[in-house]
Amino acid sequence: MASGKPASGEDALIARYFRPLATEPGAFGLDDDAAALKPNGDDVVVTTDAIVEGVHFLPDDPPDTVARKALRANLSDLAAKGATPAGFVLTLALRSADDAWLRPFAAALGEDATQFNCPLLGGDTVSTPGPLMVSVTAFGRVPPGKMVHRSGAKPGERVMVTGTIGDAALGLAILKGGKVHAAAADIAARDALIGRYRVPQPRVAMAEIVRGGASAAMDVSDGLAGDLAKLCGVSGVSAVIDLESIPLSGAARDLVSRGVVGLETLIAGGDDYEILCTLPQDRAEAFAQAARHAGIAVSSIGTVVAGSAVPKFIDGQGREIALERLSYSHF
Amino acid sequence: MASGKPASGEDALIARYFRPLATEPGAFGLDDDAAALKPNGDDVVVTTDAIVEGVHFLPDDPPDTVARKALRANLSDLAAKGATPAGFVLTLALRSADDAWLRPFAAALGEDATQFNCPLLGGDTVSTPGPLMVSVTAFGRVPPGKMVHRSGAKPGERVMVTGTIGDAALGLAILKGGKVHAAAADIAARDALIGRYRVPQPRVAMAEIVRGGASAAMDVSDGLAGDLAKLCGVSGVSAVIDLESIPLSGAARDLVSRGVVGLETLIAGGDDYEILCTLPQDRAEAFAQAARHAGIAVSSIGTVVAGSAVPKFIDGQGREIALERLSYSHF
Repeated sequence: MASGKPASGEDALIARYFRPLATEPGAFGLDDDAAALKPNGDDVVVTTDAIVEGVHFLPDDPPDTVARKALRANLSDLAAKGATPAGFVLTLALRSADDAWLRPFAAALGEDATQFNCPLLGGDTVSTPGPLMVSVTAFGRVPPGKMVHRSGAKPGERVMVTGTIGDAALGLAILKGGKVHAAAADIAARDALIGRYRVPQPRVAMAEIVRGGASAAMDVSDGLAGDLAKLCGVSGVSAVIDLESIPLSGAARDLVSRGVVGLETLIAGGDDYEILCTLPQDRAEAFAQAARHAGIAVSSIGTVVAGSAVPKFIDGQGREIALERLSYSHF
Repeated sequence: MASGKPASGEDALIARYFRPLATEPGAFGLDDDAAALKPNGDDVVVTTDAIVEGVHFLPDDPPDTVARKALRANLSDLAAKGATPAGFVLTLALRSADDAWLRPFAAALGEDATQFNCPLLGGDTVSTPGPLMVSVTAFGRVPPGKMVHRSGAKPGERVMVTGTIGDAALGLAILKGGKVHAAAADIAARDALIGRYRVPQPRVAMAEIVRGGASAAMDVSDGLAGDLAKLCGVSGVSAVIDLESIPLSGAARDLVSRGVVGLETLIAGGDDYEILCTLPQDRAEAFAQAARHAGIAVSSIGTVVAGSAVPKFIDGQGREIALERLSYSHF
């Protein structure tokens, strides 16, 4: 063409699918190279999490669930740090600009951005000959110095966790077929577990409660056992966990009681996106109450103890159970 | 193992290669899920750019150049927005944890972070069966409301650009072999052009000068012609560019004069990472002087005009040259 074309395929893709999501003034309608965040006196909490096709999600996972998982994994981190969502940028590596995939992806991303009050601020769309990858960097706000760290746990404190543990690992096991798939005959329970794997429920409503009460916190994304070991390691403490106190869904409890899976599988499985935190004994009840008030169940699962050992998991007979692995690792 | 292992391969990789880079207090030694940025009254400018092996860099590009390109592409965006670097987060998608690749990658990243005063704040390391991908989200500071936009160009203003245009496109052409490779016999010139492709020179020293003088700015990363068309489109203006004023390196000028490549190839090629901006005529001289003082050459290449047409490129005989394509597009 003599005069060139005003919009490249990449620009057209952005204009069509992502500009409608960029409603925040600081996103400048995605018409610029950068976005502007106005912190208004707060600290800006920054977190980044990427998901790769075939690694963090399955090639036939619906595109709307891929969008939600990418954003929600980051919202979960912000909540665990006590931060209120402020926005995110998106890097999308695609093999092709496939409308049938992009349309539901962008629609779901927009719905989540609205639901969690975390607007799209900018991004980059690149081509790749390899697996699809979605990388999100999300921003949150906390009053100056108030980000909650992994490092504040002290001996004698309670260990608490939101929601239920292990459902996402079971959901993935069902999608992969095999014995969990065969055993999970109840369709409704099966769908619920798959849903936990594909679409995390970030505990955004916990942000202020965590900020007000927790001495240390992180989100459980790589397995409760491994993530607790990380929190303890950074805090310079250990912990003793009562296996029977670990909150399980009805479906998970059923599969464990029938011997289909062991508890270890659940507490070393990833993708829970629950909040794990520690807090002084005298704050635990008020914390749990505030969480219930926000519609989120919180369970007390053990105690922080002095030492540098990997946290111990104790069964109903008072025996320590040995874990084959603590968590998921990429390498 | 009975008690599990305290650090996974992923944690060990981060501890070994990236923790030493996380010297900023707000990075918390990469021991947390998130970083904290203290804006101190400034706006936080956010930009994100990803590079994919085989798309933005070549599979046998040295790892140190991959690290520098990933960070510098983002530093270039910040400079064009008038923002002073404040830090970055890194997402690294790797096929394996290969020490021979990671060691020089991390070392170069650390050197650049120090040189440009842009510390590593956090990141995510994931495995991929596909091409290597490095995604960076970088942060800069500007006084409130002072980010420089693409949208402020007005008819009658000067169009200016830093450095030289087209060297990186020539460097890529040399690496790909073919006629440019054959024609670029001078080894020193060849290495310089390849260097421009592999390791951009972000115009970080221009940030304050751009902020003080430019009415609109962006970095040239997808080709001068296409990027100028974007700037004009968002500003609601057009431009007339004098082809002979476009700054070329000696090596580029030589290849053009020998007919090895056309000027169009240079102005539609990507990876320049120069700053393109517009400014009122009466500010142009002071702007160029301030840039020279910072060690950066600035050239006046044309004029902003009213209208919505794609910018015109006029040759030495006053003829408009037609461009096959304006810039690089992924899709």
